[in-house]
Amino acid sequence: MTEDFLGRCRAIVGASRVLSEQIDMAPYLTDWRGRFTGRARAVLLPASVDEVAQLVAACAHARVPIVPQGGRTGLVLGSVPDASGTAVVLSLRRMSRILELDTTNRTITVEAGAILQQIQEAAGRAGLLFPLSLAAEGSCTIGGNLSTNAGGTAVLRYGNTRDLCLGLQVVTPGGEIWDGLRGLRKDNTGYALRELFIGAEGTLGVITAAVLKLYPQPKASTTALVAMDSPERALSLLSLMQDQCGSNLTAYELMSDFCLQLVSEHFPHLPRPFVRSHAQYALLEVSSSESEEHAVALLEGAIEAALEGGLADDAVVATSLAQSSGLWQLREHIPLAQASAGKNIKHDVSLPISQIAAFIAATDAQLAHAFPGCQVVCFGHLGDGNLHYNVAPSNGVSHEAFLGNQDAINRIVHDSVARHDGSISAEHGIGALKRDELQRYKDPVELNMMRAIKGALDPLGIMNPGKIL
Amino acid sequence: MTEDFLGRCRAIVGASRVLSEQIDMAPYLTDWRGRFTGRARAVLLPASVDEVAQLVAACAHARVPIVPQGGRTGLVLGSVPDASGTAVVLSLRRMSRILELDTTNRTITVEAGAILQQIQEAAGRAGLLFPLSLAAEGSCTIGGNLSTNAGGTAVLRYGNTRDLCLGLQVVTPGGEIWDGLRGLRKDNTGYALRELFIGAEGTLGVITAAVLKLYPQPKASTTALVAMDSPERALSLLSLMQDQCGSNLTAYELMSDFCLQLVSEHFPHLPRPFVRSHAQYALLEVSSSESEEHAVALLEGAIEAALEGGLADDAVVATSLAQSSGLWQLREHIPLAQASAGKNIKHDVSLPISQIAAFIAATDAQLAHAFPGCQVVCFGHLGDGNLHYNVAPSNGVSHEAFLGNQDAINRIVHDSVARHDGSISAEHGIGALKRDELQRYKDPVELNMMRAIKGALDPLGIMNPGKIL
Repeated sequence: MTEDFLGRCRAIVGASRVLSEQIDMAPYLTDWRGRFTGRARAVLLPASVDEVAQLVAACAHARVPIVPQGGRTGLVLGSVPDASGTAVVLSLRRMSRILELDTTNRTITVEAGAILQQIQEAAGRAGLLFPLSLAAEGSCTIGGNLSTNAGGTAVLRYGNTRDLCLGLQVVTPGGEIWDGLRGLRKDNTGYALRELFIGAEGTLGVITAAVLKLYPQPKASTTALVAMDSPERALSLLSLMQDQCGSNLTAYELMSDFCLQLVSEHFPHLPRPFVRSHAQYALLEVSSSESEEHAVALLEGAIEAALEGGLADDAVVATSLAQSSGLWQLREHIPLAQASAGKNIKHDVSLPISQIAAFIAATDAQLAHAFPGCQVVCFGHLGDGNLHYNVAPSNGVSHEAFLGNQDAINRIVHDSVARHDGSISAEHGIGALKRDELQRYKDPVELNMMRAIKGALDPLGIMNPGKIL
Repeated sequence: MTEDFLGRCRAIVGASRVLSEQIDMAPYLTDWRGRFTGRARAVLLPASVDEVAQLVAACAHARVPIVPQGGRTGLVLGSVPDASGTAVVLSLRRMSRILELDTTNRTITVEAGAILQQIQEAAGRAGLLFPLSLAAEGSCTIGGNLSTNAGGTAVLRYGNTRDLCLGLQVVTPGGEIWDGLRGLRKDNTGYALRELFIGAEGTLGVITAAVLKLYPQPKASTTALVAMDSPERALSLLSLMQDQCGSNLTAYELMSDFCLQLVSEHFPHLPRPFVRSHAQYALLEVSSSESEEHAVALLEGAIEAALEGGLADDAVVATSLAQSSGLWQLREHIPLAQASAGKNIKHDVSLPISQIAAFIAATDAQLAHAFPGCQVVCFGHLGDGNLHYNVAPSNGVSHEAFLGNQDAINRIVHDSVARHDGSISAEHGIGALKRDELQRYKDPVELNMMRAIKGALDPLGIMNPGKIL
């Protein structure tokens, strides 16, 4: 049976594109953070949507589970197979072409395996902006971004990946091709299938291509780091910035003092903008479609108002591209500094913005009570209500040993998220890693609707089984 | 059976809230444009989500079809029952409360029967903006706006209704309550159910409440009317405006000369901004979060560049609120002028923006060939690729007689839309009116997925049958 099946796959894509030796498959089977290695029957490497459709039909015929895979940079084990060895990995990496760039419609049409950075660069060469931006952009694929509805640093102004996509091409679990590659900003002809496939983590079908929105490139942007004594004041500053800068406010990130301490410990060459330390820091970016002077004037005006109004204790406004980039590096080095310090227990949560201060205070207190001395590395996209709320051991306790508390700490953090009307996965998705947590926290009515949709679109249950549901 | 069923409904909401006499039901049975009057077993008027859930459960038990209804201002017969008299109308109008306004999270939570204008006003009183704006805002309900994913005049900057909603409460076809009233800007915990219910026109469940996004109110906005000789140049001007004004460009509407002729014929008191006539006019609005001077300078600068670059032949920039409002009235009176002139054959289409000029040229030519002398009333939200492309008879031909050509004209226009990769319903939805057109133009793979979802979520087929599918 397996040989018949693999023979069929070889007939479709050629023998060299069906990897079944362990040594060839290995790079496709391990989560990039190295936490889990699965097994697979084969790795399939199609080069066109027709090949994908034929492969999926062959899998459906043989009841072989399919794990669609892009750049394998996900954080929740969504794109690696389980340990059973029954599934095939369907890698989209050979389908990486940019199919069309329409400067008048401001859209770009790409295959699912295109690397995010290649798309950004293609847009840039046409004088336009594809705003999706995240740490893995040099290796993640747009198919993965779409399947996980990726977030990143530009959500405040441009939305999540779902908001950046106008059309999809999808191979259904039955091996049919849905041509939904529309470049329309308005289309009320039936159910929101595009929105449904986006964020479904490959459990409803295989995204093979997409039409993405492009934007005018801002003429300039400028950055500031603002210090304050509490998350409450960071939230008041956010409100003030939104009122004064409107959609020119393109980023608003929060970092606690402990985050910056970690960064300066592990990356001592990075700037230390303030002489004394403050409890919280907000990293702000203001962009302008007009001029650099306009961006600077807007940012400086708002910060002056913040200092006068007592919303900020100190502030540094970047006066050069190099300074802007230095401030962003502080933010971007937090995950790296964390990793250097040792493994910790990570959470990617979102909250109503009005609940953030209460959430941080309550959760910090509960953790301090249960795990005295534990250290919270709290940073994130405050403008979107998205916190990366990570927990490290107290000084002197081994990071490895501390990981034994993962379940207890998840419970404290996620229970607190639920009490504050938040989400246990803001931008990373569910994958295999958070499936049990989803069962625990999601409304049963909602879970039942999700299962009904899964059963309707994938009646054989072959699409990325064990992920999400 | 009917009496048992109505008795059960009366027990749930009280006898006075179950209308079953023809005279009481009449206002709920007719499409507001007066094109169709259906029949119903009863009109149900619940006052709470629990009552809705119990009524829907009673309907499911008795296999009684349900037609959810809001302000009954839809244009595609989506909210009136068919002629069979088997269905009940479930009116959400008694559920019109504003439940919460969170100024820090910038969200408002409302019941489905709340009138759009009440929501706009509640946001305004808090110094915030709910940007959804359309002609029927004084009588349409937010539940109807959500169920049809309404568009309107602010889509260019703020998106369609789907983009303005963070959370929903829905009564499922089985009579369960899904509490998805989340106020989160990021939430990747499973399938996009919110997006799916939005735009489903009541065929998957009953939306009973929603959490909506609010925005900072712009400090000022200003308007201009620009004249040019072709749609191509209107599109070039759109590109220039987007580059120079970014997200400060909050509206970009197109009107042909014939539209303005109609308006000045039927509403002679309205301004006539230009001495001589031009082929096309663009109505532009620029808003600023900074000041009126900023908005005016941005708009004037861009228009100067357009005149210098030969993208425009003439332009009027409003110098007062009254002038702005006068220019907007020209646009807003087009549908009224049309109605005064007599019935015509309407289309609500969208296209990739890069295809619009070619679409107009090709469709105009085909219609002129098939119906010599017929007059095209073409206007719409050019920035969104959305045209209202309406066809009136040649001078001297009766409008009533001309309506006999509806099918032939629909075929010409919609075939042309399909050839130019567009949509046959940009913002009005499908309802009962465009159901056959949908079957004709939609990819069968997509239709099958829609049917599968409908069958999974509404296995008894009681939710708004005959609409969309």
